[in-house]
Formats: sequence, C-alpha cells, structure tokens
Amino acid sequence: MIYADNAATTRMSEAAIQTMTALMNDCWGNPSSLYMHGQKSKEILEKAREDVASVIGASPREIYFTSGGSEADNQAILSAAALGLKNGKKHIISTAFEHHAVLHTLEKLKKLGFEIELLDVHENGLIDPSQVEAAIREDTCLVTIMFANNEIGTIQPIREIGAVCRKKNVLFHTDAVQAIAHIPVNVVEDNIDMLSASGHKFHGPKGVGFLYARKGIRLSNLIEGGAQEKGKRAGTENVPGIGAMAEALTESAGKMEENAAYMSKMRDRLIEGLKKIPHSALNGDPVHRLPGNVNFCFEGIEGESLLLLLDDKGIQASSGSACTSGSLDPSHVLLAIGRVHDVAHGSLRLSIGEGITEEETDYIIRSVTEVVEYLRGFSPIWRDLMSGKKEFIL
Amino acid sequence: MIYADNAATTRMSEAAIQTMTALMNDCWGNPSSLYMHGQKSKEILEKAREDVASVIGASPREIYFTSGGSEADNQAILSAAALGLKNGKKHIISTAFEHHAVLHTLEKLKKLGFEIELLDVHENGLIDPSQVEAAIREDTCLVTIMFANNEIGTIQPIREIGAVCRKKNVLFHTDAVQAIAHIPVNVVEDNIDMLSASGHKFHGPKGVGFLYARKGIRLSNLIEGGAQEKGKRAGTENVPGIGAMAEALTESAGKMEENAAYMSKMRDRLIEGLKKIPHSALNGDPVHRLPGNVNFCFEGIEGESLLLLLDDKGIQASSGSACTSGSLDPSHVLLAIGRVHDVAHGSLRLSIGEGITEEETDYIIRSVTEVVEYLRGFSPIWRDLMSGKKEFIL
Repeated sequence: MIYADNAATTRMSEAAIQTMTALMNDCWGNPSSLYMHGQKSKEILEKAREDVASVIGASPREIYFTSGGSEADNQAILSAAALGLKNGKKHIISTAFEHHAVLHTLEKLKKLGFEIELLDVHENGLIDPSQVEAAIREDTCLVTIMFANNEIGTIQPIREIGAVCRKKNVLFHTDAVQAIAHIPVNVVEDNIDMLSASGHKFHGPKGVGFLYARKGIRLSNLIEGGAQEKGKRAGTENVPGIGAMAEALTESAGKMEENAAYMSKMRDRLIEGLKKIPHSALNGDPVHRLPGNVNFCFEGIEGESLLLLLDDKGIQASSGSACTSGSLDPSHVLLAIGRVHDVAHGSLRLSIGEGITEEETDYIIRSVTEVVEYLRGFSPIWRDLMSGKKEFIL
Repeated sequence: MIYADNAATTRMSEAAIQTMTALMNDCWGNPSSLYMHGQKSKEILEKAREDVASVIGASPREIYFTSGGSEADNQAILSAAALGLKNGKKHIISTAFEHHAVLHTLEKLKKLGFEIELLDVHENGLIDPSQVEAAIREDTCLVTIMFANNEIGTIQPIREIGAVCRKKNVLFHTDAVQAIAHIPVNVVEDNIDMLSASGHKFHGPKGVGFLYARKGIRLSNLIEGGAQEKGKRAGTENVPGIGAMAEALTESAGKMEENAAYMSKMRDRLIEGLKKIPHSALNGDPVHRLPGNVNFCFEGIEGESLLLLLDDKGIQASSGSACTSGSLDPSHVLLAIGRVHDVAHGSLRLSIGEGITEEETDYIIRSVTEVVEYLRGFSPIWRDLMSGKKEFIL
C-alpha cells in the first residue's frame, strides 16, 4: 500500500499517538479546575502552546487552540470583518482558489454586505504581490491568501504579500494548513497577522488545530461560552489532542528540512515520469511547490475511475480536495488556474509522504501510465479526440 | 484520591481509550476519500452516528458531530435564530441559569436585535412548564432550557416543556451535556427538537460532541467550509474521537440505570452528612436532581480555600462550573436561585462518579466538615456572624 494522499490527512506519528494515549490515561483533569490534577492539565496545555508558538516564531499568547483548520479560518476572517465593520471598512481581498473554509466564510460575509474581491490566479497557480497592492483600497479590512494550495501545492510569495499589507496597514490572514511543518513558516519574518493550521496535516490528531493572531488583534468568538483560550474560544480544552498536536508539530518541524529535500526529489521524479504520458500536464508551478505535491491533468479520462483503479493497485490518491469529494463539479482550484471543465475532470493529486521510496515512486509512474491508457481505451471523449472530432487541449 | 468533579470532566473509560488508540493506528484515512482506507473511516463514522442516535432515540441522519457541547449549543441557537429571522420572529425564551455557551450566544443575538427573555428560576432550581407556556408569544422562535443544570444538578421537566413548545409550534432546544448517559433522554418521547451533548462528560474523549437536530430543521453553519456532516459542519471528521465517544456513550448508557441507583444513594448519604454542618444548605431540589450531584453553600467561608484544602486531603471538587473558574464573580446559577453574593461565594459542588465507595463518601463528609470548621476559625465574616454584627442567612 502506497499512501499518496497526505494533503487529505496524514497518519499520526508514533510519538503523537503515545502522547495522546498517555494524556488520555494520566492527564484528563479539566485545566480550568483548581486542584492539582486540573493544574497539571493546564501545564500540559500551556507547554503545548509554547511549543506550537516556538515552531512558527510566535509568542504563546498569540496561539488559540481550535478544533481544526476550518474553525481557525472561520474565526480569523469573521474577526477581521468585525474589526472592519467598526471602521466602516467592508472590502476583503482573497483569491478564487482558496480552501472552501475561506471561500464559504467570505460568501457568508458577502450576504452581510461585504464586498469580496477574488484576485485572478495566474495559470501557474501563483498570485503576484503587485496584484494585492493594486487591489487594496481605503476600505479594505482584510487580505486572506493561502500559504500553499491544498490541491496544486503552489506556494505563494507570502512574505512579500504580507509586506504589502503591512505597508498599506491592512490585516493579512493566511490559511497555512498545508504549509506548516512542510515548508518554513515564520509569522514575524513572513509579515503574517493571522494564520490557521490543522493538526492532522502534520502527523498530529484530527479534531484539533490552532489560530495564530498577532498580539493586539481582537478576535471575535466563533464559539461562545466559557472563558477558555483567553475568553476567545469556549469549550473544555482537548488537552490530549492539543498535547499530541504539539508533539507532532515539534517532531515534523525538526525533520522538515531533511524531509523536504528528499520529498522534492521524489516529487520531481514523479513529475518527470508522468509528463511522458501523452496529453497530460502538470497543474501549478513546478518550482514554487510543496515538496510532496504532484497534480496532473490527463485528457480524455475521469478522475474518479482513475482513483478507483489506482486503489486496486494499492495506491491511495485523490482527484483534489477531500473536502469536496462526492461533488460532481470539477475542482474550483483547477478552474481558477484556467483548466476547462473537461480537462479538470481528469485530474490526479498525489501528495506523497516522507517515507516513500524510489521504487514506490516508479511503481506509481508505471501504474498511472497503465491506468490512464486503459481508461482512454474505452473513453468516448478520447475517441472523439483521436478521431479529430474534438481538439486536444493538452 | 477521590475524584468528585465529574461534572467538569470525566475520566475516559478503558474501552473508549482502546477504541481511540485502535482508530488512531488503523483508521486514520480521511472519510471523504474514495479509496478503501478512506471508506473504512467513513464506515466507522456512520456506525458511530447510528450508535449515538440509538442511545437518544434519534435517527442517524439527525446527528451532527461537533467539537463539543459548546459548539453544539452555539450552532443550535444560531440556527433557530436564523429560521426565526426569516419569519420575522425575534423572541427567544431561556433561563438565567443556563450554561454560558447558551447565555453568551443569546447575548450575541441580543446585540443583533433579538429579544431574550430569561425565565425566573424557582429557588429549588426548577422551571415550571406553565412559565414557558405563559412566556411564548406569536414571535417566539426558540425555547432553550438545559436538561440538567451543570452546577446544582436539577433536572427540568423537559418532556412537559417540550410538549408546551410542540403545542405552540415553537422550536425547543436543550443543552443535555450533563444529562446524556446519566439520566434517561429520548428526543422523541421528550419532545426535543435540538439537543447538545459532549463526549467528555460520559467517559468519552474531549474535543468531540454532537448536535441532534430533528429531521426538517434546517441548520445554519457555524463552521463553513467542506461538505462534511451533510454540509452543515465543515472540517475533516475526527473519526477516532467520534468512534471513542460512541463507544463511551453506548457503554455508559448501558450501565446507566444501575449506576444511577447506586450514585443516588451515595449522593443522598453525602447530602444527609453535609446538612449537619451548621449554617449550610443544599442548593437545588433534592429529588429532581442528577444522581451524582451535590451542591452546598456554607456561610462564612470562601469556596476557593475550601477546594484547595480538600485537594490537600485528596478530594477533588469544585465551587461551580469549571468554565468560569478564575472569575471572582459568584456563580450565576446560585444567584439565579436566589442565593446572595456572600453565601454564593461559599459554595461546593461534589459530582461523584459511579466508582465511589461508602467509605469514600463518609471520608468526604468528615473532611468537608473539618475544613469548613477550620476555615470559619479565622474568617472575619464568620466572626461578624457569631458576634451578631451580621445576621445568618442560612
């Protein structure tokens, strides 16, 4: 079995599972309780906050634990919107290929009278900082642009975008769910005001994530209730989950450089191999790209059939985001970079892990090549393309 | 060590920890993924939904997994408010002693123009269904009343309140965080439209809970994003947490009757013992009360000192809700049932577990008696009371 869907979720590390199990057994007190057993949980919680903060260059006070990346995205954006409202600013800048946790929150704000401007994404999957600069207006209250794309893996020039926002005095949020522990992220150097992250994308547990909000930024509550997380996120803290996430983050961040170097090699090997399939194309920039991400379109086939046949061959991959599977619409990310519907339907995302071997990489190339050829053998679209009834795009 | 703070959080059961660990190891695929490993997660998720639904008499389609009770409360109330807005109904009925997850969400709605009516709570900690009936108006969009109170443990006549709401065609939500798996709850028989629950209150994991919403009730999203939970709650599903919660719920519900009978005996033994302390009083009705809840006020002392000294004696308890510890304000619940500030400050909540022994119960009685006497020995308020400068209330 070759797991090549790490962008959807990762396997928890041994250390993270051990931490989680130990905390479930021994540290289950409520951290808000006065007695020692509760205070021990509180210590674990605050140690986790320090560890998480340290990895991204933040101060522990700037870390708010959430139930995951989606919650963090929602809270960051709604907080910026609430601050904007106070100053009569209702213009928000984002891009068309953000995660749905961002896009759907922006749609909610649009219904409340906000003006949402989605920047065009270049066909290589990148945004130019000058686009952001040109779009910022007097009434802009937020720029929200993802650090690395979850489908095509392109890495945005976050530092430069952040610098533009700082210069123009506009809040800058980034969904860094795919970036954290995979590529360097430092909230100070990268000029980030708010950042979202999710534990299960870096070998931590599901159901836990965090929001970084720079000191001085007043968050609005998404979940109202008790006084947890400095009164900004109610609900008894998931101490075992938070502790395990911090463990996984520290571990993954520590091995990041080494892993990234190796995975980039395997990624490029995959890209070179898959390029040889006729009428195929890599989606997104080949260089400004997550170490583990490969995303291709193959003309004349359906992504879903491709996935099922690859699963038969022991390869687990996806056509795009797991969050929207089941939907018949083609990926909004691929449409945003200019792929037409037909082509976007035949997409494959391989998000490899650090454990992949050269042999496995080559097996993936062979298998995809075989399956694409097989599927094209009885595809009516492919027949039309071959007979000249339809024109090839790729 | 005697853990008597089960209302704050419970220890995870062995079975729940085992389920969690097994799922973290073997079932970590994203349930939205098409390949078999993802579909296995999906099966676990849907089995958990069936198990949870079955315990409360709901249909699996009516269960939405959340990050806990607070999130479920927020989503239920905001959903009812959104439905109300559509029909021009902006009146909401609740009580003054709800959990803050309810009260603070209602405050948020008040700022948005909703009229919030908090019913008076009788000094025994109960609401009469006739109060609800009298308060319902043409423009009432929601009644939200907790099943059992988290501080004083009083159990409301939920079935009768639900019947009133049904008759008047008003949505009825109940925060059942303290009730589920402790006393019988059946959403059909109890006429409940929406219900919130939290895993860690019945020996399940922290960071996971659920919202029941009767078929036909259109939920609004609190967390926007992917299409998980029928599009009503975004974010990769915490399959290990959800599976472990379902395991704990099934287990706890199965032993509920037996546990409740035993715990009620121990509770009543505690109440009888503590009553003998002069100038003390039980808070909340002695009969319509959670099997594990004991809540007393002792005149002339500070609850916080009492807790710290009990901790020294190996007894872990609280003065009220864990969610508001650190606040100097007395419990809003005790104020709601008519306790004055001075008296409310000297409160003690013991929420015992099913494992407590008679000997431990007697040890608690002895310890509390000693500590209260000791603290009164150097309390200026007690001196004033004894010298007649101040009048005893209890």
